[in-house]
Amino acid sequence: MRQASRDIKVELGDRSYLIRIGRGVRPGEWLRETGARKALIVSDSNVDAIYGADMETHLRGLAMDTARCVVPPGELSKSVPMLEKIYHSALAAGLDRASAMVALGGGVVGDLAGFAAATYLRGIRLVQVPTSLLAMVDSSVGGKTGINLAEGKNLVGAFYQPSEVCADMDTLGTLPAREYVSGLAEVVKYGVIWDGMLFRRLEREAGKLLARDTDATGEIVARCCEIKAEIVGVDELEAGMRALLNFGHTLGHALEQAAGYGALLHGEAVAIGMVFAAEVSAAKRGLPAAERDRIRALIEALGLPAGVSGDSGPSWGALRGAMSADKKSRGSRPRFVLADAIGKAAFGCEVEEEILEEAYAKIVR
Amino acid sequence: MRQASRDIKVELGDRSYLIRIGRGVRPGEWLRETGARKALIVSDSNVDAIYGADMETHLRGLAMDTARCVVPPGELSKSVPMLEKIYHSALAAGLDRASAMVALGGGVVGDLAGFAAATYLRGIRLVQVPTSLLAMVDSSVGGKTGINLAEGKNLVGAFYQPSEVCADMDTLGTLPAREYVSGLAEVVKYGVIWDGMLFRRLEREAGKLLARDTDATGEIVARCCEIKAEIVGVDELEAGMRALLNFGHTLGHALEQAAGYGALLHGEAVAIGMVFAAEVSAAKRGLPAAERDRIRALIEALGLPAGVSGDSGPSWGALRGAMSADKKSRGSRPRFVLADAIGKAAFGCEVEEEILEEAYAKIVR
Repeated sequence: MRQASRDIKVELGDRSYLIRIGRGVRPGEWLRETGARKALIVSDSNVDAIYGADMETHLRGLAMDTARCVVPPGELSKSVPMLEKIYHSALAAGLDRASAMVALGGGVVGDLAGFAAATYLRGIRLVQVPTSLLAMVDSSVGGKTGINLAEGKNLVGAFYQPSEVCADMDTLGTLPAREYVSGLAEVVKYGVIWDGMLFRRLEREAGKLLARDTDATGEIVARCCEIKAEIVGVDELEAGMRALLNFGHTLGHALEQAAGYGALLHGEAVAIGMVFAAEVSAAKRGLPAAERDRIRALIEALGLPAGVSGDSGPSWGALRGAMSADKKSRGSRPRFVLADAIGKAAFGCEVEEEILEEAYAKIVR
Repeated sequence: MRQASRDIKVELGDRSYLIRIGRGVRPGEWLRETGARKALIVSDSNVDAIYGADMETHLRGLAMDTARCVVPPGELSKSVPMLEKIYHSALAAGLDRASAMVALGGGVVGDLAGFAAATYLRGIRLVQVPTSLLAMVDSSVGGKTGINLAEGKNLVGAFYQPSEVCADMDTLGTLPAREYVSGLAEVVKYGVIWDGMLFRRLEREAGKLLARDTDATGEIVARCCEIKAEIVGVDELEAGMRALLNFGHTLGHALEQAAGYGALLHGEAVAIGMVFAAEVSAAKRGLPAAERDRIRALIEALGLPAGVSGDSGPSWGALRGAMSADKKSRGSRPRFVLADAIGKAAFGCEVEEEILEEAYAKIVR
């Protein structure tokens, strides 16, 4: 069952772990060797229908007892009731402190099941099995877990590292097109904040990416994970540099909230947010206009939204209010991640209100 | 406001903190210096009525904005709904990542507010202000936080260390007698598992303790905290030695569950559990009969229960079933902490069923 994979190590001392990327990658035999005899596979109904039975067979092949807990697909499942559902499933399946939680799915499942694993019996072993591009390059790596409250996203959670991340590239083949494309936004982000070479590669290979070419996509996923591993290794708890990963997210989160969760996919909101951040970067940090335009052009080439509608879109005032309420800026002015050039960004930037409003005007169609 | 205190350091690398014990001890100025501008004081209605306003005044004196969140007294508040209530209060008060949660109360409030602090915005600063003897010597120190589910106690939680523990000895004066005496059970425990000198002191000073003599009690609380700090410093996450702290708790938890939470106080159940564990220790580990008898005698001298009623008490079968379902033994036979002598104990002991049943028969009246 185990196949060739690219392995990337996230260096966090005694919490270090591998991200394994490749076709047919599954949780490794190390899991049985930890003494885990039981595992709960948490998934949403879409992913469970395709991959749930296969994962169960794989884990039983490792001599583990398994059970499955299935939640509805979508952001609304990152909730207290779904968290309780997982706890009850884990208790019914008899999971003890040596057992494992397997998060099989996209970002929602990874965040939800990750938080459940962080808190069930004060923390049990977690294996992340991301089945969406977004989860592979972003949410499954780095230990952020959490759920939403009525007041906003990710207001409750924990930093809790998985023991392994298994990114089976074959699962991308079954991802709905809109979900897949949405994940490309986070890929673009790594190019802008960290790696100009990666950005140029994305420009060159946009076609292969959209065709979900397994080799090209696998290499790009691996590079994104390397970057995230490097950043998280330096700043696990988001005391500083990890904030770079929020490029495009300040406006992005506000857009998601204004649209109502689910109406705009996370990556779509981040794509718009990155075009906005590029405009702010040009005005505030001297990002060359040509590079600003390349950011917008790549986002458009990948089929991602690069602006908001002047008719049906949210007002600047509403978005600005949502930014002030964001947990990263609660009680103070929002800080932005801004690019000085493609491949080099700065975090913690305060920006004058006029610059923000003018930048927003430029992304309204 | 700051008064002389005994300071005990819990050594946990960059998570080290002080336990400050003394009359009138309050959260220190360091809290303001961390940049915390807002604090949520979590308390139950009994404690809030006596100490809530005073704590609010103190924190405002440190130039902090404050809000209070009050939950009903009792174990039933260690629940998901009360956790959500704290989250909503924290959001309404505008707590950001630099803010602090102050757990003002006994073990229930400490566990509940501690878990809220561990998970709100993925973790904010926590100050434990224990106002019960049990919380001072046990639950406020060491980072165990959590809530109960319908299936059992502390099934959900986190290891999350406070930034400071402030044990104001004056608060013990307002503690109901039954609550105070219940806390003495955990004090006796430290003597049995770790420190024969402490045990002898408790035998000598039982009268002073029951009279709540501030000096004698303060010294004893400090010694208990030193022992707990030493154990937690070696084994923060309960991989091994920390299990010693569960002396008397295996049967104790089962008794609490059988009685329905709240009917038997935690310390009362632990007291009975310790008498039981002493019987098992005598049969299994050679604890001298004279030392077994001293354990029972001290528990009785302190006004704690040392047995169960043969008429109205739970059956051995029911208790044995509850032990198997405990999270510490889920999926395997229960392990016990047993004493080889007063001051020296071993954890992880398996015990034959006959010995358990015979020991239980000896504590039925």
